Amino acid sequence: MTQTGREVHLASRPHGEPTHANFTLVETDVPDPVDGQVVVRNTFFSVDPYMRSRMSSAKSYAAPYEVGQVMHGAAVGEVVASASDTLKVGDSVTHALGWREYTVADSNEFRKIDPTLVPSESAYLGILGATGLTAYVGLLDIAELKKGDVVFVSAAAGAVGSVAGQIARLRGASRVIGSAGSAAKIAYLKDKLHFDDAFNYKDGRVHEQLKNAAPEGIDVYFDNVGGDHLEAAIDSFNLYGRVAVCGAISMYNATEPVPGPRNLGQLVAKRLTIRGFLVFDHFDRRAEFAREVGGWLRDGSIVYDETVVEGIDNAVDAFLGMLRGDNIGKMVVKL
Amino acid sequence: MTQTGREVHLASRPHGEPTHANFTLVETDVPDPVDGQVVVRNTFFSVDPYMRSRMSSAKSYAAPYEVGQVMHGAAVGEVVASASDTLKVGDSVTHALGWREYTVADSNEFRKIDPTLVPSESAYLGILGATGLTAYVGLLDIAELKKGDVVFVSAAAGAVGSVAGQIARLRGASRVIGSAGSAAKIAYLKDKLHFDDAFNYKDGRVHEQLKNAAPEGIDVYFDNVGGDHLEAAIDSFNLYGRVAVCGAISMYNATEPVPGPRNLGQLVAKRLTIRGFLVFDHFDRRAEFAREVGGWLRDGSIVYDETVVEGIDNAVDAFLGMLRGDNIGKMVVKL
Repeated sequence: MTQTGREVHLASRPHGEPTHANFTLVETDVPDPVDGQVVVRNTFFSVDPYMRSRMSSAKSYAAPYEVGQVMHGAAVGEVVASASDTLKVGDSVTHALGWREYTVADSNEFRKIDPTLVPSESAYLGILGATGLTAYVGLLDIAELKKGDVVFVSAAAGAVGSVAGQIARLRGASRVIGSAGSAAKIAYLKDKLHFDDAFNYKDGRVHEQLKNAAPEGIDVYFDNVGGDHLEAAIDSFNLYGRVAVCGAISMYNATEPVPGPRNLGQLVAKRLTIRGFLVFDHFDRRAEFAREVGGWLRDGSIVYDETVVEGIDNAVDAFLGMLRGDNIGKMVVKL
Repeated sequence: MTQTGREVHLASRPHGEPTHANFTLVETDVPDPVDGQVVVRNTFFSVDPYMRSRMSSAKSYAAPYEVGQVMHGAAVGEVVASASDTLKVGDSVTHALGWREYTVADSNEFRKIDPTLVPSESAYLGILGATGLTAYVGLLDIAELKKGDVVFVSAAAGAVGSVAGQIARLRGASRVIGSAGSAAKIAYLKDKLHFDDAFNYKDGRVHEQLKNAAPEGIDVYFDNVGGDHLEAAIDSFNLYGRVAVCGAISMYNATEPVPGPRNLGQLVAKRLTIRGFLVFDHFDRRAEFAREVGGWLRDGSIVYDETVVEGIDNAVDAFLGMLRGDNIGKMVVKL
């Protein structure tokens, strides 16, 4: 097999909002597999908010991407060549070496999936992948959702938020409220995902809009954005409110430290808990998650949408668009 | 019994730092007890940081003090007249109707104590009272202290902090670090309470001083002050760090909202938990607490100091001094 494949490299570290200049599309040889390796032709890869922080050199939970090296992240694909005993040509797999057309690696870097269980194998990047598990663990384990809770989700039309809001409803929340950044997303949340209420954070102060949507207060906040949303949630919390902090997309492009909420004095009076988490700590929940959420997906209880961008040459646009909030549901690149 | 007693009333609500003008000392009749009541001659009452927030009208966990009415808070005293079947003259009791020389109330407002178990019955306001229970619950239940943790305590020479730091050591922390606001307090922490390290937050940025005191990071922060201390703790946290937020004395006199930490972005990467709590939710832990901490007190494992101010005419000075940090250990008013 003598062929080449393209991959996206980090060309330079962004200061503030990333641009095309920070990336290069590079064509490389795809070697034959040796010693337990397989070659996977990727069919989809994921672009996610957390990747923005890995473009910076600051120490974080994951090593930063290296300048001049290929980016990586979740992907699905098909084995097209194998020197492995465990994976054979034709197997569908998911893995963490995306941002490229072909991935060549040891077979233990890949996990076999069953594409017949889902409408598109890209679901293994989204609702049945780390994205869905993030929503599941954040809501149930970190925020400790209880029946009857009023739940607020920010970036609610995004990949994680859209799943989190629906899990909240299916697990017995008394009211689910979402925020998002466009009228189309608000309509989507209300009409298609059956959120009880939703508001466009660009239409006015989050503080007042949340008070209006939850006049009796909230119990759980699933935080994807930080900033004014977190401050508003603290003001709207009932006693014993819990925040699962999943991300802070409002801060990822900040070039100066962003002040935190001005109302942390309420932490004590309301006995609030604010807890950050990363899905990588919670893979032990994968089986139960796949059973429960997979069931909802198959019986139609949960709605799942993607924003699909075609071709690796458009991957950077997909990523930049996702950071700006262009997507509804999970943003994936189809190869 | 025809006699009078003095009590401290809230004269007006403070804007910023309270002054003497916000209080009045009032002489009132002490009625005879009727229908299950007792009359208690108070021997000590407590002045605590949380009382500052109750002087404001803002809704909080406890109803605000009423202007023109007597303040209240923890006290100990002796029954001097009884119309109750359960309490008799000479019994020692603790209760929540302090800031007065005599308390007349139904006997179920009082809890009997054994003054022979402690060097001074004022210990029931401090280390064996809500103060000690706050330190115990905050450290063990809220911050979930584990053996080997590095623990940082702010306001460490204060009533709660001085107990929290010692409990941390006795329960297996690998290193206990305190901050306080004077050289005398730092010497007290290091020499008498055996903190592993301590620094004066007025000597430089908390951030650098904490990094120096805990070069390998911290695991637990017992927060009594908020503000720059919380931000510094977040920067010094190891993975899975936990904050028990007990109070925020740095903010109590603020007249404008105080911005929160600028580094909340680390919540996710480090999987941090910040949890506010109030001791009133944790009275179910009182028996175990009394057994464990009472044991340490009796066998000398734990050091307990008080700052005692004599006379109800000096109670306001005691309170204002406590807010400024004049006390080492628990501040009490002796009557």
